[in-house]
This record gives sequence, C-alpha cells and structure tokens, in this order.
Amino acid sequence: MQRVHNFSAGPATLPLDVLQQARDELLDWNGSGMSVMEMSHRGRHFMTIAAQAEQDLRELLAIPAGYKVLFLQGGAHTQFAMIPLNLLRGRASADYLDTGDWSLKAIAEARRLGGVQVVASSAASHYTTLPDPADWQCDPAAAYFHYTSNETIRGVEFHQIPLPAHADTPLVADMSSNILARPVDVSHFGLIYAGAQKNIGPAGLTLVIVREDLIGQARAGTPTMLDYATFAGSDSMYNTPPTYAWYLAGLVFQWLRRQGGLAAMAVRNQRKSEKLYAAIDDSGGFYRCPVAVSCRSWMNVTFTLADAALEPVFLQQAEAAGLSGLKGHRLVGGMRASLYNAMPEAGVDALIGFMSEFGRSHG
Amino acid sequence: MQRVHNFSAGPATLPLDVLQQARDELLDWNGSGMSVMEMSHRGRHFMTIAAQAEQDLRELLAIPAGYKVLFLQGGAHTQFAMIPLNLLRGRASADYLDTGDWSLKAIAEARRLGGVQVVASSAASHYTTLPDPADWQCDPAAAYFHYTSNETIRGVEFHQIPLPAHADTPLVADMSSNILARPVDVSHFGLIYAGAQKNIGPAGLTLVIVREDLIGQARAGTPTMLDYATFAGSDSMYNTPPTYAWYLAGLVFQWLRRQGGLAAMAVRNQRKSEKLYAAIDDSGGFYRCPVAVSCRSWMNVTFTLADAALEPVFLQQAEAAGLSGLKGHRLVGGMRASLYNAMPEAGVDALIGFMSEFGRSHG
Repeated sequence: MQRVHNFSAGPATLPLDVLQQARDELLDWNGSGMSVMEMSHRGRHFMTIAAQAEQDLRELLAIPAGYKVLFLQGGAHTQFAMIPLNLLRGRASADYLDTGDWSLKAIAEARRLGGVQVVASSAASHYTTLPDPADWQCDPAAAYFHYTSNETIRGVEFHQIPLPAHADTPLVADMSSNILARPVDVSHFGLIYAGAQKNIGPAGLTLVIVREDLIGQARAGTPTMLDYATFAGSDSMYNTPPTYAWYLAGLVFQWLRRQGGLAAMAVRNQRKSEKLYAAIDDSGGFYRCPVAVSCRSWMNVTFTLADAALEPVFLQQAEAAGLSGLKGHRLVGGMRASLYNAMPEAGVDALIGFMSEFGRSHG
Repeated sequence: MQRVHNFSAGPATLPLDVLQQARDELLDWNGSGMSVMEMSHRGRHFMTIAAQAEQDLRELLAIPAGYKVLFLQGGAHTQFAMIPLNLLRGRASADYLDTGDWSLKAIAEARRLGGVQVVASSAASHYTTLPDPADWQCDPAAAYFHYTSNETIRGVEFHQIPLPAHADTPLVADMSSNILARPVDVSHFGLIYAGAQKNIGPAGLTLVIVREDLIGQARAGTPTMLDYATFAGSDSMYNTPPTYAWYLAGLVFQWLRRQGGLAAMAVRNQRKSEKLYAAIDDSGGFYRCPVAVSCRSWMNVTFTLADAALEPVFLQQAEAAGLSGLKGHRLVGGMRASLYNAMPEAGVDALIGFMSEFGRSHG
C-alpha cells in the first residue's frame, strides 16, 4: 500500500491515525461485537460516541454556554436554505457579503426564499481580493449578516472576523472549508455552519453551531427537517443521524486535541501555506498566485503556470509523483493545493520539491 | 474479536463480507493511494464506484427505463416533506394509508405542507392488521397514493403491493425497512424511497427511485435541496453526496448479487422469519406475537412474554448470550428481532435456541 498526498478540495485527505483507528475497529468497536455503522443511534455505545464528539468539539472551539451544536445532513447547500427559513424571523431581508462562488450560492438560495441585500462584492477583482469594510452598506434592520470565511474555489480567506456594522445583527458564517483550522471566538457568531468533508470528516455530515435564542423562529410552512428546533430539542437525534460520519468526526476531534488543539493547528497551517506561497512567489514568474497577499487562504492555495499549455503536463507528472488532486476547480482552471489540517507538512514539502524540479526542467 | 448477532432495527447489522472488504480497503481503495472517504466525488475513482452501485441496484430491482435513481441525504423524514412538495403538482391532496407509526409520521408532515386524505387506517387494531382494500376511500383526484410497505415498529408488512383504486394515481412507497428483501415490480410505482440504514448500508444515505415524469414539478418556493430535479439532473452530484455511504451501499448491492439476487433473498428471508414465528407460536403461550398472521413482517418480528416482568431478564440474558438489540421500540415495548438481509440464518437459529432454553428455565 502506497498512500498518495491528496490535495483534493473536498472530500479531502484525513489523518492517517484516524483512518488506521477506523480500520482497526471497523468490525468491532471497543468490544461491542459490532461496527459503529451497525449500532442503534439510541443505544448506549453510540450515545457515548456522540456525546464525546460534541464535548471534544466544544473544547476545541471553546464554544460558550448558550450555543447548540447540531450534527446534521445535507451539506452547506441545505444550510443555504435553512438559514433564511429559520433566521429571517419576519424581517424583510438579510445582509450577504459576496466574496466568491460559495457566497453566490448562499445568496442565490436566500433570494429564492426571502430578501437579500448584498452589502459588498469583490466580483470586480474576479474575487482575488476581499471588499474593504469601509465600503460595506450594512442594513441596520438586517435579519443577519452572512459571509463565507474561506472561498474554496478561488483560495480567498478572511484572516479577521468581518464584524457587521450593527453589533446586534447576528453574524452567520459558512466555515465549511476552514473550520477548526485556527481558534475562532464563537461568541461573535449567531450561527456557524460547515460541511464535514474538508476539515471535519467524511462527506454526509454538516455541523451547525447556533446561538440558542435564534432557534425556534422558523417561518410557517418550513419542513420539519429544515427547522433547527427539530434537532436542537433532540440532541440531533430526531431521526437517524449519519452515525458513522459522526463517529469519524469524533476521531478527528480527538486527533486535533492530540496535536495541541487549534492554536497549534493555526501555527502549522500558516507555516504550510506560507512556504507554498513563497515557492510560488519566488519562482520567477513560472508559477503565479492570483490572490491578493492579504487574503490568501491557508487552506486552498491556487496558482497558475505562466505557460498554461504546461498545466496538463504538470498535473500528470504530479499525479505520477504521488501528488493527487491538484487540478483547479472547473470554474477557474489552473491548480489548487488544498492544505487542510490533515495534510501533513511532508506533503507540502513534497509538492514544493516537485514544483521546483518541474520549474527547472520546463522553465 | 467476537461479533454478536445484532437484531437492531436500524442502523442494523451489515454483511460480514462487506465490512471485511471495507476494512481491507479503508486506507487504500484499489491502488488509488487513498480511502474512498478521501476521494473527490467528481474524480474518476468515485465516479466509477457511484456508477457501479447504481447499475447493480438497477439490475437487482430490474428498474425499468424511465426511472431515475437518486442517492440523497436526510432519511425518510426528509422524504416525508419532499414527496408533497414535489408530487402534489397543484392538486388539493394526496391519499395516505395509515398502517402504523411510520405512516403517521409521513401523514403528519404531508398535512403541514399540503392536503391529506387518509384512505384507511388500522389504528383500531392497534396496527396489528392491515386495512382491507375493500374499505379504502380512494380519491380519483389524489395527487398520489402513499403507503409504508413495512412498519418497523409493530412488525407489519404488505406481502402484496396495495395498488390504488384509480390506476393513474402514482403509487408512492416508503420501503425503508424492506427494500431489497424480495423482488418488487418497480413499474407499479411512481416513487419508492428508503433510508439506507436497514437493508442498504450505513445511515446517512437515502435512496429514491422515481418515475421521470414526476420530476420537475416542485411547488414554487421549494428549497433547491428538496427538489428532485436538482439531483435528477446532476447524477445526484449537485453537491457533495455522502460518498462513503454510497460506496458501502454499492458493496451491499454486490453482496446481494453474489447471494443470488432478490429472489434468493426472498426465500431466505421468508424462511428466517417463519421459523422464528413458529418458535413463538409453538411456545405454548410463553411468547406471543401480536400481529395477524397474514401481515407479519419478514423483517421485524415483534413478540411479548406472557409474563412481562420477565422481559428485562430475557433482554439481559440474550445480550449476555451475544444476541443484541432485541428490545422493542419504546412506543410499544416488548421485544423485536429485526431480520434484515444481512442477518444470517445462524443468527436466527441462535435466537430460537436461546428462546427455547429461556422458555424451559422460566416457563
């Protein structure tokens, strides 16, 4: 067995320790005589697993009292609908920041289900910058303020929390692609959501962290399964949750604690991304990152080759060298190296070495 | 490692062959150098896995042309909303058959989102019978006719398809707990749905088989993620699907084909359940099954002890004997042995042996 370095943007690489543990207990969890995926979600074994995962997540993110943690299905796309259905609370509209393709998806769905005001957009820069807060047009009556903390496709990340102009507007963040990559002060937020398949675990699980006062005000006619109250009142067990994905997320949380928690991950993530950006910037123009330096993502490093005709050759040779998943998103082309928590520094070093050698032989 | 016989109603036991294969390729699928759960859903590896799973399912169920197979999230509970949102198509109401707790859940959600007519109910028998078709009050204008093919909680199953009185009314079935347990003529149905966690794979995946002419008529304002058209037009990859659950379902489909397909499973399932019902009926009243003989489920065998005070003792000693998950649903109490496809006949034999011995020592 030869494991590759997998730079896929999601589903993404998982910590080897986690996969090994999952493999070792796949037929028999902790002497229970069954796989986690065979357990009743209401039995004592799975209840233990579920509660431990929530507790570890609460400790990792220092989630304050007054917040519910929900383990849901449906991905960020389902949250794009649940957020307006639950959080508009009779108000005319919500404020959205447009920083790229994922923001646009959230905006489009919110428009279908309620009012949206786009407070600012970086479309003019082809989403290679972030809008200057001085120019945001925030509505004091907005039901909430929504932003995407990391734009996976273009590789743009907020390195500070963009607080809305009006302090009592609940702040809502799609953290699908950078949750758990660094500490974050949850108390600033009304709601945080994240699909699991980048920094949490396998696809099929969605985490929501929501301030309790925002729960229970869903619009009339909201389907039961799209109402946060359904899950907040049942420890996310109103129906059968995605138990195996929940268990794997729990293993990832334990792994993060063993790594030293989110402060340690932040140091590592910054170092990993900065050395890759340096390799790009120092390549004499052979490689180029289109994103403004101040908002370059730690998670998704996008770059192009000066000679675009070489890109298929680059991808093919990288794959042959055990460096997988480097093709950029189909909307933008080029290359993208996703460096989530589980990507070891050795993987980044291997990529940098390959890029340097490729530059020498094709420069 | 000592595997137990797991009679849980769901999540439920999986074929040992499937678990062993999943374990063996957990760190490296087919030389790809990565786990299935780490693969991009749009990459060639997962596309192969996904397409093979759909093809195997189509062959197992002999799904005719003109039907889409969708791999979704959210469980049967999400279907309880999607069905009225998509299939009412401007009509005033749909017909629902009330045969137990799962029917009632489907009815309650459809009532919240549209009109419902309950054509018949077996509530008067405490759901131990099925309503006589001669008494059904079918509406010729009904948007569809909905029934639950197996009621997991009480252990009641339709052994024939309950065709609606009006042939052009689309037939919709919740087959969560008996899909793939026997052959079924899909051409009778407008839509079949099933949560995976009983007879398909792990929790977090929902299968929908839907006639193409019923897609694309969702009510205005339906969230994108609750519109069948969203998934029918994208091979269920509008967003990241639950890839690992999809892969495991595919392994189960391959296992079913190796077992001889659904006709062979039907023979085995009928034999497994009939020998357990015989043990109950032949116990001289020590055990009792409350369900009418004609509609006893092959999948969920419910029974009580004449001396209810012995039930905790029974459950405790069964657990100690490696027979797990026999406690009845909290709504009805008693015992329940779920005998899905993956429960080997040896498990049923072990249970019958235990019951016989328990009856002798406590009778």
